[in-house]
Amino acid sequence: MATGTFDIIHPGHITFLREAKKLGDELIVIVAREKNVRHKPKPVVPEEQRRRVVEAIKYVDKAILGDEDDMFRPIMELKPDVIVLGHDQHFDEDWLKEELRKRNLNCEVVRIRVKEDCPLCSSHKIIERILEKYGGR
Amino acid sequence: MATGTFDIIHPGHITFLREAKKLGDELIVIVAREKNVRHKPKPVVPEEQRRRVVEAIKYVDKAILGDEDDMFRPIMELKPDVIVLGHDQHFDEDWLKEELRKRNLNCEVVRIRVKEDCPLCSSHKIIERILEKYGGR
Repeated sequence: MATGTFDIIHPGHITFLREAKKLGDELIVIVAREKNVRHKPKPVVPEEQRRRVVEAIKYVDKAILGDEDDMFRPIMELKPDVIVLGHDQHFDEDWLKEELRKRNLNCEVVRIRVKEDCPLCSSHKIIERILEKYGGR
Repeated sequence: MATGTFDIIHPGHITFLREAKKLGDELIVIVAREKNVRHKPKPVVPEEQRRRVVEAIKYVDKAILGDEDDMFRPIMELKPDVIVLGHDQHFDEDWLKEELRKRNLNCEVVRIRVKEDCPLCSSHKIIERILEKYGGR
């Protein structure tokens, strides 16, 4: 299981999902709800649209929207063997492991260290390029 | 074979590629070179990055960059059975068929009529939303 906002898809996402898929048989991705994105600017693209693009990526077996009230609810329902974090994802592994333990969720937490190198390898950089190019209204 | 700019991937692209794949065994996508995009604003995302995201889509077997000088060169090399156009792609079917005939390329030209309905179903709309949201520099 992997999670993310996936606002504007770029090769960094692709690498993350490819590496995540290698860690199991089935990759389910939880796409962040707009309401729950607080650690960075709100996404531009509506959540259902983000979910559909993620689900169209080769390595993804299924993409679902997260739970607006309890991020652990889909994890408890699906009981993944592995939870995969991206190299720059803000979750603290120890905190996550402890929260999983409290809920009797016996799953591994693995952080993917592979960092993609491409010109605009984040939604933020793509947005910045757009603002530079179009100078806004 | 399909072609496009694929600047910021959205469900409209996904539907197009899914429908295109149904028309053959293998789907090769030619991603437009920046230099050749003249019928609309230049893409934001660099061409190789666009190619990599397109190639990561489930329905795409291979994505290649177009030829900067002759759009027919990859078509002559690959000799597809079907060339698939999107519902809003600017190519005129009759013109395309005639150009293919001149080059002894015996391939069908099919326009996908399925039009996706999603809130930001074009790279342009996503860019507009970004400009509205961030008001530019």
